[in-house]
Amino acid sequence: MATEKTLFEDDPVSSPKDAPAPKRRQTADEMASKQREISVSEFFTKNRHLLGFDSPLKSLLTAVKEAVDNSLDACEEAGILPELLVEIQQVNEKHFRMIVEDNGPGIVKEQIGKIFGKLLYGSKFHKLSQSRGQQGIGISAAGMYGQLTTGKPVRVVSKTGPRKPALELYLGIDTAKNKPEIHSEQEIEWDKPHGTRIEIEMEAKHQKGVRSIDMYLKQTAIANPHLTLHYSSPNEEPITYERNVRVLPPETEEIKPHPHGVELGRLIAMLKNTESRSLSGFLQEEFCRVGPKVAKNIIDGAGAGLTPKSYPARIARDAADALHTAIQEAKISSPPTTCIAPIGEELILKGLRKEIDADFYVAATRPASVYRGNPFLIEAGIAYGKPGGTGLEFEEESGRIQKRKVKVDITQDLVGAGDEPARLLRFANRVPLQYQQSACAINKGIIGTNWKSYGLTQPRGSLPIAPMVIFVHIASVWVPFTSESKEAIANYDEILKEIKLALRECGRKLGIHIRKGKRIRREFDKRNHIEKYIPHIGIALQEILDLSNEDRDSTVETLEEVLHKSRKF
Amino acid sequence: MATEKTLFEDDPVSSPKDAPAPKRRQTADEMASKQREISVSEFFTKNRHLLGFDSPLKSLLTAVKEAVDNSLDACEEAGILPELLVEIQQVNEKHFRMIVEDNGPGIVKEQIGKIFGKLLYGSKFHKLSQSRGQQGIGISAAGMYGQLTTGKPVRVVSKTGPRKPALELYLGIDTAKNKPEIHSEQEIEWDKPHGTRIEIEMEAKHQKGVRSIDMYLKQTAIANPHLTLHYSSPNEEPITYERNVRVLPPETEEIKPHPHGVELGRLIAMLKNTESRSLSGFLQEEFCRVGPKVAKNIIDGAGAGLTPKSYPARIARDAADALHTAIQEAKISSPPTTCIAPIGEELILKGLRKEIDADFYVAATRPASVYRGNPFLIEAGIAYGKPGGTGLEFEEESGRIQKRKVKVDITQDLVGAGDEPARLLRFANRVPLQYQQSACAINKGIIGTNWKSYGLTQPRGSLPIAPMVIFVHIASVWVPFTSESKEAIANYDEILKEIKLALRECGRKLGIHIRKGKRIRREFDKRNHIEKYIPHIGIALQEILDLSNEDRDSTVETLEEVLHKSRKF
Repeated sequence: MATEKTLFEDDPVSSPKDAPAPKRRQTADEMASKQREISVSEFFTKNRHLLGFDSPLKSLLTAVKEAVDNSLDACEEAGILPELLVEIQQVNEKHFRMIVEDNGPGIVKEQIGKIFGKLLYGSKFHKLSQSRGQQGIGISAAGMYGQLTTGKPVRVVSKTGPRKPALELYLGIDTAKNKPEIHSEQEIEWDKPHGTRIEIEMEAKHQKGVRSIDMYLKQTAIANPHLTLHYSSPNEEPITYERNVRVLPPETEEIKPHPHGVELGRLIAMLKNTESRSLSGFLQEEFCRVGPKVAKNIIDGAGAGLTPKSYPARIARDAADALHTAIQEAKISSPPTTCIAPIGEELILKGLRKEIDADFYVAATRPASVYRGNPFLIEAGIAYGKPGGTGLEFEEESGRIQKRKVKVDITQDLVGAGDEPARLLRFANRVPLQYQQSACAINKGIIGTNWKSYGLTQPRGSLPIAPMVIFVHIASVWVPFTSESKEAIANYDEILKEIKLALRECGRKLGIHIRKGKRIRREFDKRNHIEKYIPHIGIALQEILDLSNEDRDSTVETLEEVLHKSRKF
Repeated sequence: MATEKTLFEDDPVSSPKDAPAPKRRQTADEMASKQREISVSEFFTKNRHLLGFDSPLKSLLTAVKEAVDNSLDACEEAGILPELLVEIQQVNEKHFRMIVEDNGPGIVKEQIGKIFGKLLYGSKFHKLSQSRGQQGIGISAAGMYGQLTTGKPVRVVSKTGPRKPALELYLGIDTAKNKPEIHSEQEIEWDKPHGTRIEIEMEAKHQKGVRSIDMYLKQTAIANPHLTLHYSSPNEEPITYERNVRVLPPETEEIKPHPHGVELGRLIAMLKNTESRSLSGFLQEEFCRVGPKVAKNIIDGAGAGLTPKSYPARIARDAADALHTAIQEAKISSPPTTCIAPIGEELILKGLRKEIDADFYVAATRPASVYRGNPFLIEAGIAYGKPGGTGLEFEEESGRIQKRKVKVDITQDLVGAGDEPARLLRFANRVPLQYQQSACAINKGIIGTNWKSYGLTQPRGSLPIAPMVIFVHIASVWVPFTSESKEAIANYDEILKEIKLALRECGRKLGIHIRKGKRIRREFDKRNHIEKYIPHIGIALQEILDLSNEDRDSTVETLEEVLHKSRKF
């Protein structure tokens, strides 16, 4: 029997010094009787703010977002150009009904209950590939929130093909067990070849503004130019965002984990569970970028008696440790980037131009990079322009500087006034992020960029002050969000670096535009200044040279013409 | 059969207009085959940053915090004055071992595995009472992180009484199933009457500084004056924080939910599951603050055919809706506050004085308040003083202003220099919060307080600039954290309001102190100014009145004395 040394010389309870010992309250046995398992649904019901269901206003937006994410993922996986309907109906003073309908592949009967009535269930968590959803929580949490606040079940209609019947289900969630409860199920007519429709009634608030559903959908349209989206809401004209392009984003491949991203404990578990019968085979089959040669290098580097033929499940912890170190030290190519589909500079510009009326647009797509073994890619874009009504615009036209009224009443709420910080459009795998901007790596990357060198004002540690929209998109097989509600990107160094590089590419081009604008303005001011004195020069010349009034006026005119020509650029 | 109207006139896939239709990629059936359940352990392994296990540095702190939280909760529940040992050992370059040992009640054999090897398991989630832990995730997640990064199991030693054997277990977690894996189990000698010891080896980084374990433990000592804590870490002298007081915090009561905090869906579920056989009994038994009279008022208010004798499980959704509305509209007393134990002004001051060397201390404990039906209470404290070496201190002493060297080299990292923002000490149920300050309601409350009116500098939208520590503690039966890692308090209006009120109480007293200091300084400056001219007045008088040098000097002396007396206050 081993002996455990104690640190305490006496038991403070049995030997009080200056006060009576506190009363014993509970024993270990009594305490044990109160231990219980907590279902993940109970956990997220009580902590529903973690999923984005804090306030009635935010909850409605979160629910729409989760449903739209799912619809878009399903359409793209099935190779269908997405056409979505989003509808908000007011049921009574406090309750709204959210409806999202897609033309996706539909859902087979057996899966409907689990997808909408069970948390932590899905197809995207266990694979490394780019998708909007990744956790298997969102849409069932939306239904759970609806059930919690109204007591009403979710309605789902699904049809998987033209010759299949449409199924209508009403379902809830048994939170104590985290299991779906099917209330009713029947076949119905649906004059649509395939698709899914979901309806959730919930306590909600609906309004327009910066973090509204309107703004979220507008941003979704910018980042998904292949999407056609119909939106209708109470007291508003229905809107349709037409697709810009009739091509789906390229199909992304699922990849295996990269060896450099694997932790020791995970490696040990993989060795134990693999079906490979040799270490060399294991390394090549379970990871990407490992061929026979790299595998041999790793195994040679590990030592510890390991050979290419070692039987994975019999490798001891210490040898696994050596193997892990050898993997970290081995030269292995970066993971393939076919698993990531950027939007692309051209479509970003197209999207920005379509939805934001500005003077200048620029976009940049960075090459793929890697954090913790996960490939990712950053894209940035900028729409810059004077906000409506704050001043004049100067422009060169056929060699002459022209003053003109600003056309730009930009932004329909997306761009701030000129004396406000730039507005951010943040996206992760084409999904707009609306909350927690200050906690987001994108925000940090923008603040950490020196915008002064591009001719903008930037208070220390703040966003640049300009009538400007900054667009940043991260595409990755696994986006590291700071919370389940997927509102902000975690601050990984590699991600931050790429964000800054993308912004710098855009910033340089913006700087040229701004400097040109400033130069034009300066020239205009100088010309105005000189112009003021030309009539006086005319009068002086008239006196000196005894000119007639006609001569004087023609001289003045000539001088003005010379001025305009000489101050050309 | 019902008919579902479709929104789409044609199927974009089968009728391309200007581009070839995209290729079908997957069918609903193919997609269904990939749907899988995700275990909560898998979820949090992949998302371990949500639990505070992002970086090696933060992970070690989080693990210590979770273990200390559990030890303190167990001691207090059992009525034992806590004495803890926290030890950090370096195992190799990247691995550290964390050890936390307590003199608590110990854990019975059957529970050890689940408590340390299963996520979402615990005694605190399902009840409304004040405790540090509330989710049943923390300590098992720490073990899971250790296992992931080192492949090594957790060691637990537990003893439940002087005549019971001590048990030693090595255990891991089966993440795919979220179940404990007991590696070994044996009885050992432990010369300690009762207690629990946990050891976890993990990839970690250890350093001193603002967000270090040192600082966390120092703050824990401030908020838990009944705790004695021994701390040892590599290359440092061991430290002991001795307890200030030999009395445990008062025992808090578990309460039932308050009717005003119940959502409709929850009410429906409660009606269905209750053992009460009448509606009146249900309301009185399942909620706090409902007696026969309040129950009757609610039921009368609801109408919808409900009577005090209605059988709860048979109440239809519409009637439940009416009942819910009637509950919200009924006058019901605030929940009892015996479920909350504040630290108290006296002990906050004692704690601040002991650990922070400053000039001025103040504390305030607010009365309990309620958010979403949950009682909570805010306490605040301030330690204010000039930081070392930046200037002089002026003080009134026996009627004369004395200049003295500043004694204050405060703060051992807790207080900033005088030109830095005030440092915050944030606590929730006596647990120090170290990360995500900017996202926290406490931070928001401080920024939203007008510190200028108390004589401090405060840039717009920022913390006050002063050599100052601001302490804020929220005690509640359910603290609304913004993430599972429990680092920041969510911005509920009611909480924010109470934080501001508590700060205002402290601020007013601080303002008096600061204004007095400023007045003294002004007087001192004036006196110095006048004093400079007295010798010249002496010389002038000498010339005018033809005084002797002695007369002149005595006049000057008299004038100086008069000055000191007249500028007294």
